[in-house]
Amino acid sequence: MGIEFRSDVTVELVRANASDADVVFAARVSTVGEQSLEDVDADPQRSVGLINYLMRDRHGSPFEHNSMTFFVKAPIFVWREHMRHRIASYNEESARYRELLPVFYVPSHERPLVQSGKPGAYEFHPGTPAQSELVERTIQESCTAAYSGYLEMLEAGVAREVARMVLPVTIYSSAYVTMNARALMNFLSLRRKVEGSYFVSYPQREIEMVAEVYEDHFAQLMPLTHSAFNEHGRVAP
Amino acid sequence: MGIEFRSDVTVELVRANASDADVVFAARVSTVGEQSLEDVDADPQRSVGLINYLMRDRHGSPFEHNSMTFFVKAPIFVWREHMRHRIASYNEESARYRELLPVFYVPSHERPLVQSGKPGAYEFHPGTPAQSELVERTIQESCTAAYSGYLEMLEAGVAREVARMVLPVTIYSSAYVTMNARALMNFLSLRRKVEGSYFVSYPQREIEMVAEVYEDHFAQLMPLTHSAFNEHGRVAP
Amino acid sequence: MGIEFRSDVTVELVRANASDADVVFAARVSTVGEQSLEDVDADPQRSVGLINYLMRDRHGSPFEHNSMTFFVKAPIFVWREHMRHRIASYNEESARYRELLPVFYVPSHERPLVQSGKPGAYEFHPGTPAQSELVERTIQESCTAAYSGYLEMLEAGVAREVARMVLPVTIYSSAYVTMNARALMNFLSLRRKVEGSYFVSYPQREIEMVAEVYEDHFAQLMPLTHSAFNEHGRVAP
Amino acid sequence: MGIEFRSDVTVELVRANASDADVVFAARVSTVGEQSLEDVDADPQRSVGLINYLMRDRHGSPFEHNSMTFFVKAPIFVWREHMRHRIASYNEESARYRELLPVFYVPSHERPLVQSGKPGAYEFHPGTPAQSELVERTIQESCTAAYSGYLEMLEAGVAREVARMVLPVTIYSSAYVTMNARALMNFLSLRRKVEGSYFVSYPQREIEMVAEVYEDHFAQLMPLTHSAFNEHGRVAP
Repeated sequence: MGIEFRSDVTVELVRANASDADVVFAARVSTVGEQSLEDVDADPQRSVGLINYLMRDRHGSPFEHNSMTFFVKAPIFVWREHMRHRIASYNEESARYRELLPVFYVPSHERPLVQSGKPGAYEFHPGTPAQSELVERTIQESCTAAYSGYLEMLEAGVAREVARMVLPVTIYSSAYVTMNARALMNFLSLRRKVEGSYFVSYPQREIEMVAEVYEDHFAQLMPLTHSAFNEHGRVAP
Repeated sequence: MGIEFRSDVTVELVRANASDADVVFAARVSTVGEQSLEDVDADPQRSVGLINYLMRDRHGSPFEHNSMTFFVKAPIFVWREHMRHRIASYNEESARYRELLPVFYVPSHERPLVQSGKPGAYEFHPGTPAQSELVERTIQESCTAAYSGYLEMLEAGVAREVARMVLPVTIYSSAYVTMNARALMNFLSLRRKVEGSYFVSYPQREIEMVAEVYEDHFAQLMPLTHSAFNEHGRVAP
Repeated sequence: MGIEFRSDVTVELVRANASDADVVFAARVSTVGEQSLEDVDADPQRSVGLINYLMRDRHGSPFEHNSMTFFVKAPIFVWREHMRHRIASYNEESARYRELLPVFYVPSHERPLVQSGKPGAYEFHPGTPAQSELVERTIQESCTAAYSGYLEMLEAGVAREVARMVLPVTIYSSAYVTMNARALMNFLSLRRKVEGSYFVSYPQREIEMVAEVYEDHFAQLMPLTHSAFNEHGRVAP
Repeated sequence: MGIEFRSDVTVELVRANASDADVVFAARVSTVGEQSLEDVDADPQRSVGLINYLMRDRHGSPFEHNSMTFFVKAPIFVWREHMRHRIASYNEESARYRELLPVFYVPSHERPLVQSGKPGAYEFHPGTPAQSELVERTIQESCTAAYSGYLEMLEAGVAREVARMVLPVTIYSSAYVTMNARALMNFLSLRRKVEGSYFVSYPQREIEMVAEVYEDHFAQLMPLTHSAFNEHGRVAP
C-alpha cells in the first residue's frame, strides 16, 4: 500500500499580493496626511521610519491591505492548532470527499522528545536512543495498522467519512491558507519561539516548522515590515 | 486500561444570556424608531412581527447581543469541522497539557454507513450487518492498539505532545464553545439537514448530533427567534 | 476657500489578486478530490459547473483566497454604513491628522428625495423642483458656514480633532478598502437593490453608487463567480 | 426647537454575563488539566495565579466566554472611531429610520483644545479663554444652523436620509455595544492613555471618556482579570 513516513512539512507560496509599499500607501491615506507620496518614494528612509512608527504604536490596519496564499501539507495535529487562528482563510482536503493518502509524520531524530517544567512553559530535551526507537516504531506500527483498517473498510463499501475515524492525527492533510501580514505576524508571534520577543511562546515544534517557512516568505516579500516586527518585540500591531 | 466506546455526543448549556427581548431591545435602538418600548412590552404580537421582519430582511446585528456557552464532548473529527466556524469562541482540551482519556466514538447500529451519489450531495444508507460488524470491530481494535501505544510512550517518558500523534480522530475531546444567536443560526443552517431549508446541507451525522442539541437549547431560550429562523428558510440573517 | 460640491463617488481599483481560477484551485483542495487540475484547465465548462455548485451549496471558503483593494472617496454618511461590514480592511483619512478638504456631497437632480412606505421598506420618489432647490440650497449654505467655522477655529490654533466637530456628515472622506470576493458578495447583496435577488435590500442610494463600481470591477476580475452569484439569488455563499 | 449642548457621554451597562470564574473554568478545560475544579474554588490564590499566567503568556481564548452589553450615547465622531473595532456587535440609531434629536457635544472648559508635537504622538494643552470661547460659540452656532436646515428639509417632505446630510459629526447618536472581555481589553489598550502601559496610545479624549466607564464596569465584573490586565502592561492577551 506504499505507506510513507516523513519528518517535514511542505509550505509553498502559491500567490502573494504583498509589499512594503502597500503599507506605506495605506498608512498615508489615514495617518500621515502631511507627507506626500512623492516624498516617500524619493526617500526610502522615510518608509522605514513610517513602518517602524506604525509597528511601534500599533497602527495595525495598514498591514491588512495585502494577502499571501500558501499551500501547506502538515499533520492533522498541526492543522488543529493552525485553525484556531480565525483571521485567515482555509480550504483543507476533505476526508469525506477523498481517500486520504498513507503519508504520516514521525519525529526526526533531532526532534526533542522529552518535556520538563510546568504546564505552559515546558522545556524540551532530546530523547534517549531507546525513546527515539520506541517513538519511531510505535508510530510506524500504529499508523500502518490503522491505515490497513481504513482500506479494509473502504473496500467493504463503507463511506469515507466513517472509515476515516481510525486514522491518527499524525496523518498528513493539505490546505490552502490565505492571510494578510497583520494576521501572519500574530501567527508568528505565537507559533515561533524567538529570542528577544516581548512575549514568550511555547509552540509545538511541528507548527513552528510551518511558521518558519511562512516567515521566510514574509521577510522576502515585505523586508521593512519584517524588520520592524523583529525590532519591536515581535508583537503583532 | 478501561477503554470506552460510545456512540453519542455530550452537549450541556453552561451559561446563557440570550432572550427574544434582547433582540427587540437592540433592534429598537436602530431600526424601529417610531415604536416605544412600552408598546412592545404591552403587545407581544409586535415582538413577533419585529423579529420576523428582522429575519426576513436580514437585519442580522440585533441577533448578536447575546451569548450561549456550551460544554461539548465530541470526537476530534467533529471538532475539526466545528472549528471552521470562526465567529465563535473555543477552549478545547489540550493533548499537550493533559493525558487524553481512552474514550472513542464508534457509530451506532442506526448510523448509515454507506454513501452514494455525487460529491457534495451524498446520500447515506444503512450498512449490511457485515459492514456494521466490520466497522465496529475495526474501530475498536484500531483504537485499542493506538491507545496502548500512546500509554507505552507516555510511560517511557515521551512528551504528551509526541505520544498523542498515534491517537485516532475518533477519540473524544472536550471544549467550551461560546456563540451568539446569529453565529449559531449560521452553524445550524450548515450543520443540519432540515426539510424546507432554502439551502440544502449535507452535514456529517456526528456534527449534526451536536447541532441538534444546540438547536433545542436555542429554541428554549429564544423561541420567537427560533420560529422566525424556521419560517424564513433557516437562513441566518 | 474653494469649496466644492459634487454628486458622485470615486471608486478606483488599486490592486487585485482575484480570479475565477483561484476559486477552482482552492475548491479542488477540499471538495473535489476526484477531479484533476488538468481536467479543469482543459474544460472550462467544468469550472463553470464547479463554481456554480460552490455558490449554490454555500461552500463559501474557496471564495476567500483572493483580495481586492479599492481607493474610495465618499461622504462620511456612506462610510458610516460601509464600516459596519466587519470582514474588510480599512484605512480612512483621519481628521485628527490632516485638515479635511472642503468637498461636499449634494444629491443630483436625479436622486429621489421623498420617501414613502413602512420603515425598512421605504420607496423613494423624485422631489418637486421646490424640494430639489431647498435641498441643494440648504446643503450648500450649511456646509459653507460649517467649513468656515472649521477654518476659523484652525486658524485660531484649535486642534484639528476639535475643530472638525462642526463638519457635516456629507463631507467627503477617502479610504483604502480591501475585501475578498466572499465579503464583497455579502456587501453587494445588502447594498444593491437588484431584481431577482432572493433577499430584498433597501440600501441608501449613495452607498449603492459605491457598490455598483465595486460590482463592475468584480465582474471583470471574476466573471464566472459573478455570474454564479447572480444566478443563485445574489446570496453570498 | 429645544437644542441641547452637552459635554459628557452616557455609558450604561445593560446586561453582563462576565466573571473571573468563567475565565478559570474555560482555561481549565484546555490548559490546566492537572488542576481540579474543587481546588480552584477552595483556593482563590490559584485563580489569581492562573489568570495572571493566562494574561502574561497571551492565552487569550479563555477571556472570550463572556459578554457585556452597553447602551452608549456619544457624538458621531466617537462612533466613527469605535466602530473600527470589528470584534464587537453594534446596533446604532439610524438617521434613515428616525429623526435625530438636537443634542450636540461641545468640549467642556477642562478639555484641552490645542495640540503640539508630531503626528501620532500629539500632546494636548488647555486653550486660552479666547480659544475656548471661539470653540463653544462656533460649535453652538454651527450646530444650531445645521439643525434648523435639517428641520426645514424634513418639514418640506424631504426624506430623513437626505435631510441628515447637513448634520455635524458632533451630534449624539445612541447604540447597543456588545463585547467580550478580550475584545474590551483590546479596546481599552488603544483607547485609554494610562501610565505603565507597554504600548503608548493617543486616543481622542472623547472616546477615552467612553473607555473609562467601560473599564469601571469591567473592573467591577471581573476584578482579577482587570488586575492582571494592568499588571501585564495593559496588553490584550
